[in-house]
Amino acid sequence: MSDSLPPSRLVAALNWRYAVKKFDPTRMIPAETWTALEQALVLTPSSIGLQPWKFLVVTTPEVKVRLTAASYRQSQAAECSHFVVFTVRQDLDAEHVDRHLARMAEVRGVTVESLAKFRTMTMGNLERARNDGTLDTWQTHQIYIALGQFMASAAVLGIDTCPMEGIEPAKFDEILGLQGTGYATVVACAAGYRWPEDKYATTPKVRFKPEDVIVRV
Amino acid sequence: MSDSLPPSRLVAALNWRYAVKKFDPTRMIPAETWTALEQALVLTPSSIGLQPWKFLVVTTPEVKVRLTAASYRQSQAAECSHFVVFTVRQDLDAEHVDRHLARMAEVRGVTVESLAKFRTMTMGNLERARNDGTLDTWQTHQIYIALGQFMASAAVLGIDTCPMEGIEPAKFDEILGLQGTGYATVVACAAGYRWPEDKYATTPKVRFKPEDVIVRV
Repeated sequence: MSDSLPPSRLVAALNWRYAVKKFDPTRMIPAETWTALEQALVLTPSSIGLQPWKFLVVTTPEVKVRLTAASYRQSQAAECSHFVVFTVRQDLDAEHVDRHLARMAEVRGVTVESLAKFRTMTMGNLERARNDGTLDTWQTHQIYIALGQFMASAAVLGIDTCPMEGIEPAKFDEILGLQGTGYATVVACAAGYRWPEDKYATTPKVRFKPEDVIVRV
Repeated sequence: MSDSLPPSRLVAALNWRYAVKKFDPTRMIPAETWTALEQALVLTPSSIGLQPWKFLVVTTPEVKVRLTAASYRQSQAAECSHFVVFTVRQDLDAEHVDRHLARMAEVRGVTVESLAKFRTMTMGNLERARNDGTLDTWQTHQIYIALGQFMASAAVLGIDTCPMEGIEPAKFDEILGLQGTGYATVVACAAGYRWPEDKYATTPKVRFKPEDVIVRV
């Protein structure tokens, strides 16, 4: 690809990012930047391309406050610019697969019938996972790819984030009206701008030495 | 952050990427670029910062060929430049936590003793997950953050990737000598350069429409 980022700038961006504890509640992410971050979510790769997710982008102040109360009182949901709730399709079924196939036919200008072999393969994989009891686990893995792509994308755009597993998913589902939709909350991520005095911004980042986590084979 | 990437360039990079089926076996990723991608792995955020992983970077031709044989004959492992195997620490224990604490003390210039409260909190969280039977699941989620960060980082550097869940993890563990190390293969990702005639490069990318996966709240 032409016009790629210099490697040193990628590393600088990833070093710059940290899990923001205190966001600046007065700063909103500009529309153009936010649209790109939504695209990063939409474009996330997933197993067999199934995209087993919906991303809830919360900006309504009252909802953000309610989600804070379901986040063990961590303040990020309320204070950030855009709060993303990552939800995964439970018990992924033929309806979802057929929705994907219809979209594939539309984008590629082919008939759904021509995708019959792909459908059979996909349904077979899902059925095996369902029988093994690993279907939801498998799909949940995919949402963490989205989380990783989102945070890295935000970092290179100069947008701060805080990934949040310390939430109460069942309460989130209730607040967001997810019951009965087939989608359930897994994890969340706050996005926005660090508060200038967030002390964690200047706390040295702790990572194992490269030689302790990278093994050359 | 100053010097961030324009949003349109991020979106272009993420649209450019696709799951490469055929890599150009003659092209190697330059050292400076690869070092940055290793940094992207090392810098991946993880729950409580525990970094429950090792990343095996496979470039030895014979090993790559053997991994291909354990990948349902998909050729990416053999033909790519750098093949990364993502492994997760099983049954994460006090030894791992203490290694993290020692590193934290080193990086931040504090004593391990001053981190006692953090240790107690962390061990409590791990113990609860162990009792719930979710400890390995939880740590496995983190490795998919690394996969997402890795693929997005590669894309902005103009490096091609192919995420690979269609592998035989137990055979990978055997080939890579992981038995008894506490680390087990979860997923892999090939990195390098697309073969100019890989037909999948020009197949239109299929994603649900933004309005079908993004919900504004």
